[in-house]
Formats: sequence, structure tokens, C-alpha cells
Amino acid sequence: MNGFIYHVPTKVYFGKNQLQNLGPELKNFGRRVLLVYGGGSIKKTGLYDKVVAEIEKAGLELYELSGIEPNPRVTSINEGARICREKQIDVLLAVGGGSTIDAAKSIGAAAYYDGDAWDLVTRKVPITNCLPVVSILTLAATGSEMNANSVISNLETNDKIGVAHPGMVPKVSFLDPTNTFTVSKYQTACGAADIISHILEVYFSPDHDLYMLDQVMEGLLRTVIKFAPVALEEPDNYEARANLMWASSWAINGFIRGGKQQAWSCHPMEHQLSAYYDITHGLGLAILTPRWMEYVLDETTVAKFQQFACNVFGVDCRLEPMVAAKKGIEILSDFLFDTLGLQRTLSELGIDDTHFHDMAEKACRGGVINGFKPLNSQDVESIYRMCL
Amino acid sequence: MNGFIYHVPTKVYFGKNQLQNLGPELKNFGRRVLLVYGGGSIKKTGLYDKVVAEIEKAGLELYELSGIEPNPRVTSINEGARICREKQIDVLLAVGGGSTIDAAKSIGAAAYYDGDAWDLVTRKVPITNCLPVVSILTLAATGSEMNANSVISNLETNDKIGVAHPGMVPKVSFLDPTNTFTVSKYQTACGAADIISHILEVYFSPDHDLYMLDQVMEGLLRTVIKFAPVALEEPDNYEARANLMWASSWAINGFIRGGKQQAWSCHPMEHQLSAYYDITHGLGLAILTPRWMEYVLDETTVAKFQQFACNVFGVDCRLEPMVAAKKGIEILSDFLFDTLGLQRTLSELGIDDTHFHDMAEKACRGGVINGFKPLNSQDVESIYRMCL
Repeated sequence: MNGFIYHVPTKVYFGKNQLQNLGPELKNFGRRVLLVYGGGSIKKTGLYDKVVAEIEKAGLELYELSGIEPNPRVTSINEGARICREKQIDVLLAVGGGSTIDAAKSIGAAAYYDGDAWDLVTRKVPITNCLPVVSILTLAATGSEMNANSVISNLETNDKIGVAHPGMVPKVSFLDPTNTFTVSKYQTACGAADIISHILEVYFSPDHDLYMLDQVMEGLLRTVIKFAPVALEEPDNYEARANLMWASSWAINGFIRGGKQQAWSCHPMEHQLSAYYDITHGLGLAILTPRWMEYVLDETTVAKFQQFACNVFGVDCRLEPMVAAKKGIEILSDFLFDTLGLQRTLSELGIDDTHFHDMAEKACRGGVINGFKPLNSQDVESIYRMCL
Repeated sequence: MNGFIYHVPTKVYFGKNQLQNLGPELKNFGRRVLLVYGGGSIKKTGLYDKVVAEIEKAGLELYELSGIEPNPRVTSINEGARICREKQIDVLLAVGGGSTIDAAKSIGAAAYYDGDAWDLVTRKVPITNCLPVVSILTLAATGSEMNANSVISNLETNDKIGVAHPGMVPKVSFLDPTNTFTVSKYQTACGAADIISHILEVYFSPDHDLYMLDQVMEGLLRTVIKFAPVALEEPDNYEARANLMWASSWAINGFIRGGKQQAWSCHPMEHQLSAYYDITHGLGLAILTPRWMEYVLDETTVAKFQQFACNVFGVDCRLEPMVAAKKGIEILSDFLFDTLGLQRTLSELGIDDTHFHDMAEKACRGGVINGFKPLNSQDVESIYRMCL
């Protein structure tokens, strides 16, 4: 069992009618606010107007950067950083899903660097500082609202790379489940798959770690499995949206990680899918996860898969471990592809094996993904093929 | 479902061999450190020497206040506050269990007030500020290492009162399970009862709240029930001590509370027991909890008790709700009094009904405890009598 440092200082306003706290919170960081958002859905829902009203009420100066892409591009980061420097921005306000918040974080870091932000993402140049980020979440998925991570894409090089810095953890996040009522069925399903993947990447670990965290993770998984279908059927079901939203934060804010040090498996494989084909991150994870499970299931890993099947899906714990394990993977597949209605194969997305070799090499970064079971580039290529 | 603010900024170093971070962390707050501890067990275990060595290595000035009582007295708070003012202390370092950490918090607040600290505890004078508190935990129980609460006793008035202020949340806490290897069977058992009570006070709530938090709470309860007996049998079992330690923090740091606003029930009743008879808090909670459960169990509350019995203790969920509920309470009693070996009645502690009337009045503060089921002073007196 490894030691760990736990530090999640984000202040969270959870629930309805918390936006009156936005102005005072922003004011703590200064007067000049850069509002960062995506394609304008927040204008349709009326959230944009509410946010602007609160900023005006607080007497703050508002600047804007819109058009953040679903897999945010480094070009947007450079543009945002330029505005921060030119307008001497004090605080970034991200209103949107994980992509928008990720973008704001990298913009905040790039504001302190005069060169191409891609240097920071690729770690050519270390991040030294970050402007404070405040977020208003509109999609339960990535957990970006409560962690230090930012994933940025570069379409020129087909790269999608995650970067992190303690200064990038949002200082304050507003989590109002009603802001996710308008999220489409497809995006709700992708978000649920993303949350599930974040938990499974930690849950399936070779490290022996805290029993209590396994208990918590199984509870979070049961929560997503219970409420994602409800949110699909009743988009404005507050209870379902609230459970998904808070679970999305818990899945990847450090609560459940404990001392587990191992690399994640499906995320680096998925980042290549998104980098090459610009597909939705959660969808890529959904397609990959059950195939990865089948691939790594063997006598050395079966016990954890059995535990997963029994404690998450209620599979009979008296079954043979291998039988129970396979049943668990099957039920997860059914959940992702039938209940959530996500596409089952890469072929359905028009993806063939053209780039699998290169993608696999990149996913392994010239070495091995040291996850639950170590994967070399041939393993990764095999898993991609299983997804066709 | 209510909204809530979540903010737990404490940085936690969890695990073995983290103490080399103590000096640098203390230094962030200044040079003059007041070390606060209890009866000297940290000298026997060698922890005191290690802490002093780290403080010296960092070149900090060390002052000391020892002799903090198990139910910390306001006299100690006044003494600590005097030292803080005289020596211009920059940071308080509490090394011990909940009592020591609670004391350091109130000392930190009282340092900013020239009068009697009891004025702050009784809210006659509002707390305005608090010196930074760093803690090194040696007992898994109260969760004080990660929250804003401080409970202080006044033997002159037979009062034990909790007070809280955002500034009182420890800035940094060191949670090394090996520091609890020397905790006695009795204190380990009392600590486990305390953790269980913190969870149950939130779990049994009239508010309809997040399903996921119920899942988490049930997981934490199963964790304590699994590992407390292990720690009793094998005091130096790292896994058991680690699970108990992290569960103690999670039970009362805000993670599980969500938007539940209701008052706690057993804690105000227990505070009177400790105030009048100076008994161990966890023991008082253990004696009270099953009786409180029996007292409030009825047709309106049975569903939650059934859920508790089935999900925490594996009681057959097909049983009649009332039968399952009673079974759950019975198993909890057996766990507290047989497995943990705690005394079952107040009579065994030499407590009779002499003060029950006054204690019940004080517990209700002239009104009603608005908990899972509202309790007036007659209800409380009845529950005390059930404990004889």
C-alpha cells in the first residue's frame, strides 16, 4: 500500500440558485474576467445571459473567448493566452463541459509564457504558474471542474496530450445539475461512459490499496449505472442529473485514487482515437473498455473482475471466478451499447485499421503502458482491432 | 434535495515516511511553532522526538503546550492563547487525537481574542480569525484533522460545546497509520464507534439526498466494521489502521454530507454525558446509538433502517421491513458491545439517573433536537433511561 498526498482545494457550489455567489467569488481574484466558452449552446439555454448579468452586477470587466472545440485545440489556447496578456486578465471563467474547462486551464498557464502553448503541453517548457480558473459546469463527464488536468489537441500533428499543474485546479466550481438538463442523449451517454472509465482506470489496479476506496468506487459505479438511463429518459430529472454530476467530480478529483500509482490503460488508447479521428472522448472509451477488459482478463487478473461483476452488477459471487468475470464484462457491454445506446464498434464510426500501428506506437510512447496489465504497442494494436 | 457548499482545503500526507514534509509545510506559515499535545504518549512512542527533529532541521523556533485533556478544557485553551500572544506564534502544530487537534483550533482562534476563550465557544463573541493549524494524527476517531470543528469542555459549568470556523480547518494534516499502532484496544474501539456514529448521524436523515452519498456511507460503514476487529486483534496491521484512519476523516470532513441540513441526534446527547461524567466520547456514542435507533424506529422511519440493515450488514432484503430493521439494530449492538467489547450500559460506568433531567434539557437547549426524528427533552431523558 503506497502513501499519497491528497489535496483538492476547489470550493464547490452544488445545486440550484448558487449563481449569486459568482460575482463575489470572481472579485476575490481581481477585476478583469475572461469568459471562455464553446459553440454557443450557453446562449440558447440562457446561462450566458445569467452569467453576464452576475459579472456586471459585481462591476467586473468582461472579455470573451468563444468557440472552444470539443477536443480543444492548441490554436485556441494560444489565442486565449494572447487575450490574457493583452487585456491583463485576472481570472478565467470557463462555462461549459470538460473541454472548455480544460482549455481555460491551459490558457491560464500559457498566459505566463510568450511562446507557443504547445511547448507547455508537450513539456518542452515547464508550466510555472496559472491564472485562477473558475468554472460553471454544463456537462457531467470529465471531472475537469475539480482537478489539475487539461487535455489539448493539435490537429497538425495528430496529437492529444494531457498536462497538469497544481495551479490549474479550479479555485471555485459551480455545479448546478439543472445546467445539464439540455444535454443531448448522446452527450449524456458519452459523459456516463467517461465517468465509468475514470473509475475503472483506478479500480483495476495491480496495487493492493485501501478496501474503503474500492467500496466507494463500486458505489459510484452503481450510481452512474442507476441514473444514466434515467437521465436519458427524463433529461430534466434533477436527482439523476445531480448524482451524475457529483459522481463525475468524485471519479477523478483524487478522492478515490489513494496511493495507486499505475498508469491508466484505456485513456492513452482513446486519446489516439480522438487525436486521429476527433471522436467524442467518452464514446471512444466506451468502445475500448470492454475490449480492453477481455484482452487483460486471465488467471492473474480474474479476481478483480469477479469482484467487479459481483459488487457492481450483482453477479452471483458463488459462480466460478472466470464465469463471473466474463458475465461482468458482458453486462457492462450491454449497458454501454444497449442501455446507453452508444455505437459498439469503430467501424460504425467509419474508422478502419489504417492508422492503428502508428496510434498504438504513440499510445505507448515508445514503451509500455504500465497499467493493470502492461501493454506494449502490439497489445494496443490488437485491442484496436477487437474494436472494429 | 438541497444545494450545498463543499470546501475541504486540507492538504493530507497519508502513509508512512511523510514527516520529512513537516518542516517545509510549517515554514509556509512562519517561524514560531507552538507544539500542542496531550499526556505524553507521543514521548513514549518516539513520535515527539521525530517531530522535534524535523522542526529543528527546518530551523524553526519551538514552543510547547502539553497536557491537553481527553475532553479538552477551556482552561487549556486560555493557557495556549496566552502563549500564542506572548510568543507571537505563527502556526500551531497539534500532535495527537481529536482532543488535541480540537484544542489547537480553539487556541488558534482564542489567540485573536483577549478575553476568556469560553466567550468564543459559547458564541458570546464571534470568532474572527484563527492561527494556521497543522496536525499529526495519532488516533482514528473524531475527524478533526480535516474539518472546522472544535469541541471544548468547561468543568465548572458542566458544559461541552462544539464551535466551528472556516479558519479552523487544519491547513495540513499528516495521517500515518503506523502512528496508531500503539492505540489501546479500548481507544481503538471507542474510535471506531465514533466514526460509525459520524456516518450514521448523516445517513439517517429525513432529507432526500444524493443516492451516491448513501452508497459511499454504506461503504465506509462496511469498512469500519470489517477492519476495527482486525485492529483490535492485530494492533500493528497496517491495512486495518489505514482503512480506519482514512474512514475517520471521510466520515466528517464534508465529503458525505451533501445538502443534508438536519441536526445530529446522538452527539448532543453524548456531549452531556461527557460534560457531566467526563467519559470517552466514542463510548458514550456507542451506548446511546442503538437505544436512539430503537426509540426512533417506527413506520415512518423503517425504510431507512431496513436499507441500513440490508446494505451494511447483509440482512435479507426480502424480510418484512420492520423485522429487517430490528435485525440491523441488533447486529449493530452486537458489534459495538460484543465484537468491539465496549461497555453496554451507563450503569456499568457508575452513571445513574441523577442528572438525566438537566442533561436532557441542556441537550435540547430549551427546544427540540431536529434530527432524523425530532426529540424533545422528554424523549432524550427516555433514551438516557434506556441506556441504564
